[in-house]
Amino acid sequence: MRKMSSKFKNAKRIEGLDSNVWIEFTKLAADPSVVNLGQGLPDISLPMYIKEELSKIATTDSLNQYTRGFGHPSLVKALSCLYEKLYQNQINPDKEILVTVGAYGSLFNAIHGLIDEGDEVIIIVPFYDCYEPMVRMAGATPVFVPLRSKPVDGRKWSSSDWTLDPQELASKFNSKTKAIILNTPHNPLGKVYTREELQVIADLCIKYDTLCISDEVYEWLVYAGNKHLKIATFPGMWERTITIGSAGKTFSVTGWKLGWSIGPDHLIKHLQTVQQNTVYTCATPLQEALAHAFWIDIKRMDDPECYFNSLPKELELKRDRMVHLLESIGLKPIVPDGGYFIIADVSLMDADLSDMENNNEPYDYKFVKWMTKNKKLSAIPVSAFCNSETKLQFEKFVRFCFIKKDSTLDAAEEIFKAWSRQKS
Amino acid sequence: MRKMSSKFKNAKRIEGLDSNVWIEFTKLAADPSVVNLGQGLPDISLPMYIKEELSKIATTDSLNQYTRGFGHPSLVKALSCLYEKLYQNQINPDKEILVTVGAYGSLFNAIHGLIDEGDEVIIIVPFYDCYEPMVRMAGATPVFVPLRSKPVDGRKWSSSDWTLDPQELASKFNSKTKAIILNTPHNPLGKVYTREELQVIADLCIKYDTLCISDEVYEWLVYAGNKHLKIATFPGMWERTITIGSAGKTFSVTGWKLGWSIGPDHLIKHLQTVQQNTVYTCATPLQEALAHAFWIDIKRMDDPECYFNSLPKELELKRDRMVHLLESIGLKPIVPDGGYFIIADVSLMDADLSDMENNNEPYDYKFVKWMTKNKKLSAIPVSAFCNSETKLQFEKFVRFCFIKKDSTLDAAEEIFKAWSRQKS
Ligand SMILES: Cc1ncc(COP(=O)(O)O)c(C=O)c1O
Ligand SMILES: Cc1ncc(COP(=O)(O)O)c(C=O)c1O
Repeated sequence: MRKMSSKFKNAKRIEGLDSNVWIEFTKLAADPSVVNLGQGLPDISLPMYIKEELSKIATTDSLNQYTRGFGHPSLVKALSCLYEKLYQNQINPDKEILVTVGAYGSLFNAIHGLIDEGDEVIIIVPFYDCYEPMVRMAGATPVFVPLRSKPVDGRKWSSSDWTLDPQELASKFNSKTKAIILNTPHNPLGKVYTREELQVIADLCIKYDTLCISDEVYEWLVYAGNKHLKIATFPGMWERTITIGSAGKTFSVTGWKLGWSIGPDHLIKHLQTVQQNTVYTCATPLQEALAHAFWIDIKRMDDPECYFNSLPKELELKRDRMVHLLESIGLKPIVPDGGYFIIADVSLMDADLSDMENNNEPYDYKFVKWMTKNKKLSAIPVSAFCNSETKLQFEKFVRFCFIKKDSTLDAAEEIFKAWSRQKS
Repeated sequence: MRKMSSKFKNAKRIEGLDSNVWIEFTKLAADPSVVNLGQGLPDISLPMYIKEELSKIATTDSLNQYTRGFGHPSLVKALSCLYEKLYQNQINPDKEILVTVGAYGSLFNAIHGLIDEGDEVIIIVPFYDCYEPMVRMAGATPVFVPLRSKPVDGRKWSSSDWTLDPQELASKFNSKTKAIILNTPHNPLGKVYTREELQVIADLCIKYDTLCISDEVYEWLVYAGNKHLKIATFPGMWERTITIGSAGKTFSVTGWKLGWSIGPDHLIKHLQTVQQNTVYTCATPLQEALAHAFWIDIKRMDDPECYFNSLPKELELKRDRMVHLLESIGLKPIVPDGGYFIIADVSLMDADLSDMENNNEPYDYKFVKWMTKNKKLSAIPVSAFCNSETKLQFEKFVRFCFIKKDSTLDAAEEIFKAWSRQKS
């Protein structure tokens, strides 16, 4: 073979960052005979109004043209109105909000706008998988700290049993620490951080003069007995926090890829600089439709019909169903307090992985591949949410997504029940 | 004032990259009483089918969810079918095409996937303004080479009078040169590079083993007597070229922010790595609608109704109108062979810029601000498309966009005529 030009090589910043769990497992689950509880991809009915708004807007010529780069005017206005209620403080729509290509885009803009080569960034394990490569692409060093589970004996296992050890967390901060990435409600555990837990993080951020990138894409999805809190509203935190949201998660339209960052002007302006030199602006018709959808729900926030209230109610039933299902086949799921994922130790399931290739893959990777092929059920391996050193700790866990219509959950139930009958 | 934390500073990679011509001049032109010939923002009627496709697709739940990260399957299939015709060669839809957030996203992914700190990248002046900050953000050094105009005496001035000096171009290549960024048809000049001109560039790319990033967003917009050629089809060039297109320019839907990169697997894969660590995926409903629109026009490519043929016909009339208009008021526009912009030396226009603030701004910046305020007509200063050393060379020029409906051009005509009457 002809030798390839060295000029064809990747830039160093992306060296080793080419594997991606979504790409690998989405491909696997593409087989239409597979019941897909993998990627966080809602198959429930969407709110009618969000589809109808887009459908109407599409026919207006001017709404198919470029809009303001940092966010379509009607959308940043709606976002400022909504978040002013939640922050109990004014939010400048032009300077303190940036609309991005999904929460992904916000994470990227925040990291590339604020993090330098040589900086350290604290990441809590397990973590939404893109945090690590984004930090590495910025030339910074991710510093990992794990959530650890208390023993639960006979009790149900809950996402709230997973906590940070305050001492251990403190030991990760130093003068090089530029930021910590927080995610609440948490993917994949479903943990909703309490006021006390957030206070520990806030205190450390202030003590070490550190930024906080708070990924709150599941902010509306919290279940009875829990409350989502914003670390940006803690004393001393607004000035150092970027809070990230997602239209995909808020209105169950993951395919719209719109997100936003909220924070003080002195930070947001750096994210804006990254945006204007990477994508410049986001899709206009989607932003306009999203603004309309927000106004509908902003006007009825105390109403049970408001999507911010009705979706978590709908999902709580699905969560409970998944808990019962997983328990009924002898597993011990970690009951999530928020989000739309549930994880369970699957090492008890009967699975003969002996002829899986790639034997150096973690157990859960092999398990999910085996399950997708042999049981026609897909999921996501939890070690995908871990750095290489902690993968072993989580490789018995698999994540199931439950924002699925009843018939999908029925199909999953069939598969699980048949599988466990076979075993016994 | 309290001292700000040093942790609030921007990352070094974006130092000095915060000003942006679009943001500045779009804000100015937002006044509804201003006739906007500034940003490349079509106000002509859109093709009915593209709006209707989006309107229909919006109502299908599943088409509002995540799709394949590197490009929605139906879209990459349509793109491969179209470009196979143009390249007269097979194009693998999964490995040789990447769908991105506009052409902007493609430029960013190419530069960040392939260009390292310390590399040199050749940029031809004037240039679409984001090339320079993107290259700088990658830590590389832009090396500029100007298009120079031949004397035209009494003749009409044409974009084809602007050429690269082959010797001067060659002098910019060396062993550190990682890539050259080419743009044909050219924004803002409207130049359509000839076969001979492209061959000079191709020869240098091969001699110095250099990549070529070819921005061809106006590929369909070439006027009688000109033909758009793809440098990727020149011998030895496919393996080293990323060719970039834009839905915004192809179907006059700039607000959709969808673009694509086409090139060999060994290069595209690095762009894919950047994409999966920055935005992950593009909007599904827009991609699906775009695929439908492409199929409609792919099936009638020889038909004058095909948008690829009808749009340049429509625009050629508008170009001719703008040429006459600018000539009638005593200016000497550079007649473009492609694209939808026309530039003219405006120093002959009567404009009293004496009380414009910011006196260290280039002449054209002041002129456009003055014109927007006093004449209610907006445009874009051409020095925005120059590096700081060459701004002086181009500061007499202003760019007008002519993808505008007749009533907009009528309004511009009124303004110009009244202005020139006033002068005489
Ligand atoms: C915690 C978390 N952050 C960010 C994202 C990305 O969101 P978006 O699709 O808006 O980019 C996801 C998507 O699953 C997520 O779970
Ligand atoms: C030469 C050139 N390249 C790229 C772009 C950006 O295109 P998009 O809107 O698809 O990102 C433009 C837009 O004006 C352009 O003129």
